[in-house]
Amino acid sequence: MNLRERLKLYVITDRRLINEITGAREALEGGATAIQLRIKNTSTREMIEVGKKIRKLCDDFGALFFVNDRLDVALATNADGIHVGKEDMPVYMVREIAPNLIVGASARNPQEAKDAEKQGAHYIGAGSVFPTVSKDDAIVTGLETLRLIVESVSIPVVAIGGINHSNVREVMKTGVDGVAVISAIMGAKDIRKAAREMLLIIERDI
Amino acid sequence: MNLRERLKLYVITDRRLINEITGAREALEGGATAIQLRIKNTSTREMIEVGKKIRKLCDDFGALFFVNDRLDVALATNADGIHVGKEDMPVYMVREIAPNLIVGASARNPQEAKDAEKQGAHYIGAGSVFPTVSKDDAIVTGLETLRLIVESVSIPVVAIGGINHSNVREVMKTGVDGVAVISAIMGAKDIRKAAREMLLIIERDI
Repeated sequence: MNLRERLKLYVITDRRLINEITGAREALEGGATAIQLRIKNTSTREMIEVGKKIRKLCDDFGALFFVNDRLDVALATNADGIHVGKEDMPVYMVREIAPNLIVGASARNPQEAKDAEKQGAHYIGAGSVFPTVSKDDAIVTGLETLRLIVESVSIPVVAIGGINHSNVREVMKTGVDGVAVISAIMGAKDIRKAAREMLLIIERDI
Repeated sequence: MNLRERLKLYVITDRRLINEITGAREALEGGATAIQLRIKNTSTREMIEVGKKIRKLCDDFGALFFVNDRLDVALATNADGIHVGKEDMPVYMVREIAPNLIVGASARNPQEAKDAEKQGAHYIGAGSVFPTVSKDDAIVTGLETLRLIVESVSIPVVAIGGINHSNVREVMKTGVDGVAVISAIMGAKDIRKAAREMLLIIERDI
């Protein structure tokens, strides 16, 4: 399976919603194609322990495992990749230090997306498409900018920010390869079902 | 100069006392032989930017540059080494991922020191020798345990925790190779002078 297909349903952990390991397991059971460990305000040791467990789960389900921000944790857990934003390590530096990792980069507009691609990013996390509760200071790009980002680069684009079952269809129509989801899945009463249903909507459209 | 000598006066940054770069520069001017960047609660990007500046200063002064906890920041700034505690990445893992880095490990007793040495640590940070304001939850080991730690390993030992100009002499008498200092230097009105005077006391005793 190529990278584009494996970024179809990219689920991000959020301890405020559910324990990372339980959340990841249920999302994978529902069909998540990638999990990103996003964990802050705890020790590096705990991040590694949690990450190793999710790494194992992703192996079991044939899904990709990404770590947000922390290259040390990505290397220690043998992650497939790392996702970096503007406040994290620059993409070119990650590529130099860890040439075997898949590197995703956040972009809010076509210029940032092109810059990340030039630095060696393998995919773009574009958004925040809609307002989001997971990151209340996020800049909202909307669907039209998302479409422009998709057109601006040749690497895969994953949409992020406020994506849920009601809007994922119009998001996919912009040409993105997949969606990154936090609350609509990790905050669902039945995470497995929420993932499965979202995957069904996504697959109907590609 | 061998590692033992370069660990003689190991100064650790603390933003609560002074900006990391200014503090490091003045400590180096006063004769610090190593600087450790200890920085939390800010972005990885900022840690790397600050670290690169201190890396450069350490080069200028021929001092070693260490990063606390964060292997990603150590790799991105081309640090000489990393210091890890019980809540950080395990020593053996650091050695696997970054075989060229000097690895220091915290130990509170001879058993922890021996364990760290076995995992491949290059030096021990032993303490907290005295009660300390920099880390109020630290376990106090005292001078006798410090002596036992020194005897238990063949790698260099740096004492840490509550060390100041009044007690550094008795600390050095336990056989440690150097002292790690935060407040007695970074919290001094004249950091340069505080470092210089501490170095004089240390050198008088070895």
